[in-house]
Amino acid sequence: MINKHPLYTPDMLSAEDRARLDKLLEKFEYEADRFLGYPCTRDFDFSPLFPFMFYPLNNVGDPFEDTTFRLNTHDIECEVLEYFREYTEAPKNGFWGYMTNGGTEGNMYGIYLARELHPNGVVYYSEDTHYSVAKILRLLHARNIMIRSLPNGEIDYEDLKETLRIHRDVPPIIFANIGTTMKGAVDNLDKIKAVLNDLAIRDYYIHADAALSGMILPFVKDPQPWNFRSGVDSVSISGHKMIGSPIPCGVVIAKKANVERIARSVEYIGTLDTTLTGSRNAITPLFLWYAIRAQGWEGFRKIILRCFKTADYAITKFKQAGIDAWRNNNSITVVFPRPGPQIMKKWQLAVHGNHAHIITMPHVEERHINAILQDLIDDMKKGNVA
Amino acid sequence: MINKHPLYTPDMLSAEDRARLDKLLEKFEYEADRFLGYPCTRDFDFSPLFPFMFYPLNNVGDPFEDTTFRLNTHDIECEVLEYFREYTEAPKNGFWGYMTNGGTEGNMYGIYLARELHPNGVVYYSEDTHYSVAKILRLLHARNIMIRSLPNGEIDYEDLKETLRIHRDVPPIIFANIGTTMKGAVDNLDKIKAVLNDLAIRDYYIHADAALSGMILPFVKDPQPWNFRSGVDSVSISGHKMIGSPIPCGVVIAKKANVERIARSVEYIGTLDTTLTGSRNAITPLFLWYAIRAQGWEGFRKIILRCFKTADYAITKFKQAGIDAWRNNNSITVVFPRPGPQIMKKWQLAVHGNHAHIITMPHVEERHINAILQDLIDDMKKGNVA
Repeated sequence: MINKHPLYTPDMLSAEDRARLDKLLEKFEYEADRFLGYPCTRDFDFSPLFPFMFYPLNNVGDPFEDTTFRLNTHDIECEVLEYFREYTEAPKNGFWGYMTNGGTEGNMYGIYLARELHPNGVVYYSEDTHYSVAKILRLLHARNIMIRSLPNGEIDYEDLKETLRIHRDVPPIIFANIGTTMKGAVDNLDKIKAVLNDLAIRDYYIHADAALSGMILPFVKDPQPWNFRSGVDSVSISGHKMIGSPIPCGVVIAKKANVERIARSVEYIGTLDTTLTGSRNAITPLFLWYAIRAQGWEGFRKIILRCFKTADYAITKFKQAGIDAWRNNNSITVVFPRPGPQIMKKWQLAVHGNHAHIITMPHVEERHINAILQDLIDDMKKGNVA
Repeated sequence: MINKHPLYTPDMLSAEDRARLDKLLEKFEYEADRFLGYPCTRDFDFSPLFPFMFYPLNNVGDPFEDTTFRLNTHDIECEVLEYFREYTEAPKNGFWGYMTNGGTEGNMYGIYLARELHPNGVVYYSEDTHYSVAKILRLLHARNIMIRSLPNGEIDYEDLKETLRIHRDVPPIIFANIGTTMKGAVDNLDKIKAVLNDLAIRDYYIHADAALSGMILPFVKDPQPWNFRSGVDSVSISGHKMIGSPIPCGVVIAKKANVERIARSVEYIGTLDTTLTGSRNAITPLFLWYAIRAQGWEGFRKIILRCFKTADYAITKFKQAGIDAWRNNNSITVVFPRPGPQIMKKWQLAVHGNHAHIITMPHVEERHINAILQDLIDDMKKGNVA
């Protein structure tokens, strides 16, 4: 299995270079235990799959199509997609999708598909939307309007309605946040559809950015409306967030009929070139497949219940210390006032305006909450109140 | 180092699932020894870097900027970029770049940059250009015109000139193939610049798709003009091809001044969101860094010399057997008439029209050439001449 003639061997590195790699590993071990601000699990161990890393694998092109490049894991990828089809309640025989390099690619695919279906369409998205979406809209030359947000991070349905009212001549493309980056807020699809219905808008497209919450909402008792059953046309979910992966990855799922309308029109290229990137990662499908086969639906439900328990623990403890912490329904993103720069740096906290957050991913334990809380209390004693 | 509480362990998999993974590995071991048609080295062994795969690494955003997400290998990535700056002869203090998920992203970045600089620009590219470019042009809403190719795969300079002549009112964006996918042909930048000069076109942009040849031409004695010294504005080079990687990756290098003109205009997003994908692979920079540090320039020169030796061996042997095989100057892509489907499948040959090719990557040995030649001879005896 091990390559017999590797071009690169450790003895070809200088002692200095080897020491540098060791030091980098030490740094990661240190930082990974202070990793509270980003929605990425660190509790994975994919070493049983490392033997696959000895081959030039590539899931080039459409995972559902055959290819002469046989060093691929298309079959595994298709099974991962089928799991996400279930989680997102997409139609059994009416979906298409692929594994992406992460959220940006999934959202780009969704908006690209929407723009092709509605060339005059206008994309509506809230001001709490991830900053990468502005870049995607610019890249795609997609007409767009930013909508105000409510204080909890949801899109302002009134502003959406008033804005849609004056653009009823062009089809809306709704970019819905299913869990905003900063506050974990879920744009309510029922309310959005009610707005569209009130304005008698029948021709529209809804893309859901469910980066983190797409792996939370399938496992809770009372999910907000968020998936294909609630009317989305495409959804992007990250793989390296709740499931975990050392390499960013994700899935995008869309309605097959829509994808086929696009695919047909690019047939002159001589191939069903339906994925945004051509050469694609064949290792991350193995990671997600392994995780899903190992835990299953019930396993994820338990993992996610534990995340909520930690989030509620954090909120209780923070409030007891006089810190105004809160979370949205079905979110594990604990929002609190922005702390000083040292605490931000030590605990790798993402901040926006006056807000910071801890995301209680599976690797976050009560001891982490206690430790950051102590730091916050010490800082307040010094008078560094946010 | 090993995660103490992994969410997924092998004993959680069924015996059936474990057997399936074993079978998949066996398949890859078999197929990897018949892997002659794609430009991807299999001679890598990155196992010394596997310990990094236990952390949720992410090279989010601009590699040259600081980030609160500290589990990154930005430093390593910047060093890899500096090597490619040298290989591409980009200006020492006037370049910018990042590591991509592969060729599509690098080419998309180059054309995006060109389109932003020249919103009315028209992209010119030869009919031998990789099929993914048509998809990129569609995605980017970039005006474009396909140009005829010469029989050897280079762009037809006459057709380019005549086409440019009737569109002199808008700046041309030249998409140059530095090694075409099928025939390894290099569009001659000196000839292209002569055409532009003849037509008194001063305002233009040249992007070079140097997926494979960008890691060949720096190491040969008489390279065709291809890099920044010869006037390109940006270049995309694959990492998983000549260097090798189990995960597709690449670099894109551009002139800093151009990138800054774009970066400034997206500052309203509140960040220097200069990379196309946001979350980015932090493992592949380690792979490329390790390979480059291990082999160095002289090491690669030797590896590539060996590839040419194998290519010439193949051409000699094929010709002796009456098969019309040839290659372009400084290319390791051996072109020959399309064989029957069984041979295509067995040796994973990419074909286009009447042509097939073997790419004599470092893992391709004379025994492989002898074996496929025997298959071709046997097939011809059966009367299956292409």
